[in-house]
Amino acid sequence: MNKSGFFITLEGADGCGKSTQARLISDYLINLQYDVILTREPGGTPLAEEIRKVILNPNGEVLDEMAEILLYAASRAQHVNRFIKPALAAGKVVICERFIDSSLAYQGYGLGLDLRTIQKINRIAVGNFMPNLTFLLDMETNLCQKRIHGRSGVSLAGIDRIESRSLQFHEKVRHGYRKLAQDNSRIVLIDASNKSIGEIHQVIVEILMKRLDVKL
Amino acid sequence: MNKSGFFITLEGADGCGKSTQARLISDYLINLQYDVILTREPGGTPLAEEIRKVILNPNGEVLDEMAEILLYAASRAQHVNRFIKPALAAGKVVICERFIDSSLAYQGYGLGLDLRTIQKINRIAVGNFMPNLTFLLDMETNLCQKRIHGRSGVSLAGIDRIESRSLQFHEKVRHGYRKLAQDNSRIVLIDASNKSIGEIHQVIVEILMKRLDVKL
Repeated sequence: MNKSGFFITLEGADGCGKSTQARLISDYLINLQYDVILTREPGGTPLAEEIRKVILNPNGEVLDEMAEILLYAASRAQHVNRFIKPALAAGKVVICERFIDSSLAYQGYGLGLDLRTIQKINRIAVGNFMPNLTFLLDMETNLCQKRIHGRSGVSLAGIDRIESRSLQFHEKVRHGYRKLAQDNSRIVLIDASNKSIGEIHQVIVEILMKRLDVKL
Repeated sequence: MNKSGFFITLEGADGCGKSTQARLISDYLINLQYDVILTREPGGTPLAEEIRKVILNPNGEVLDEMAEILLYAASRAQHVNRFIKPALAAGKVVICERFIDSSLAYQGYGLGLDLRTIQKINRIAVGNFMPNLTFLLDMETNLCQKRIHGRSGVSLAGIDRIESRSLQFHEKVRHGYRKLAQDNSRIVLIDASNKSIGEIHQVIVEILMKRLDVKL
């Protein structure tokens, strides 16, 4: 089978089920003989992970907002140019948790940084490279928060800087994500509040297989 | 004395004497009752230092060129917004080894990355914030290289990624620096090849005191 690459991203708040759905998509496609790579942002390569650590653990120093945008963009440039693009060129399906929409939703809508600045920096960072398809797992903020705090082994000290931001912040992020989905046909919003893992997977697979058929 | 802030940067190849001259300027101004801060890039705050470590030690992974530009810009945004600007606002003289001209000389002229992209990213990173005065210590490349390799305790393994680049690269960087000095009245080129430490300091002090008189 001569398959061309396909780039899928999963977006949504922490706790919405991105990792679970990413693994399920991966298993499903591997069963269909696709060559699949699972990855995530921020991070995705050892060096991008190092950058991720700097962002998540500023050791008491206040991370400047502009520095944060640039660090995410640097991590993304490394991940895209050194990992994702070569994999796609080799015909693989790349499934990535979080991508540019996370920067727009969190830094832009959440923190109130200028959306056009974030877009401009990211456009410079990775060119006009964008996912072929994005699934936004939209879930009520309360539900996500409950899930995060219920994760085994997670104490308050273990909740990182971003997760510990206020409920109001997370509501803004959710609103931002929904706005992005409204404005971009690439992004498919999936109601994840009142569905089981299996039900959500079913919805994703149906949409994905239609898109893959178009592409392949 | 009510003094307004003044931002001085020192530029030039590794081994040209930036650190020595920075300390001498600092001592000179402290004697004149100025409130002085010495700092450097990449780095300048603990968090910016963390970013510096990521750039200098990619652990075998090839650092993407665009990621490198963005990391330097992130480090600079943190340094400027959280450290340099507050110090200047408090009336201090800030002396910084390396700043935006290093990005232009090394990534732009040295590595051949698009100068306008570097300028654009940096302009977004720190606004239009620039030094009041920049001293470029221009030195023959061979001399700089000899000095670096003669530094006590420095083995080949201790020479970092940037220092170990080829002689040709360092020639391009030097040419870039000279071009920048030609194009910007902010940058004062000082011939450091055939002068003693004391002679160079004398030249710097004469120029600096004229500029400080204008400013203060």
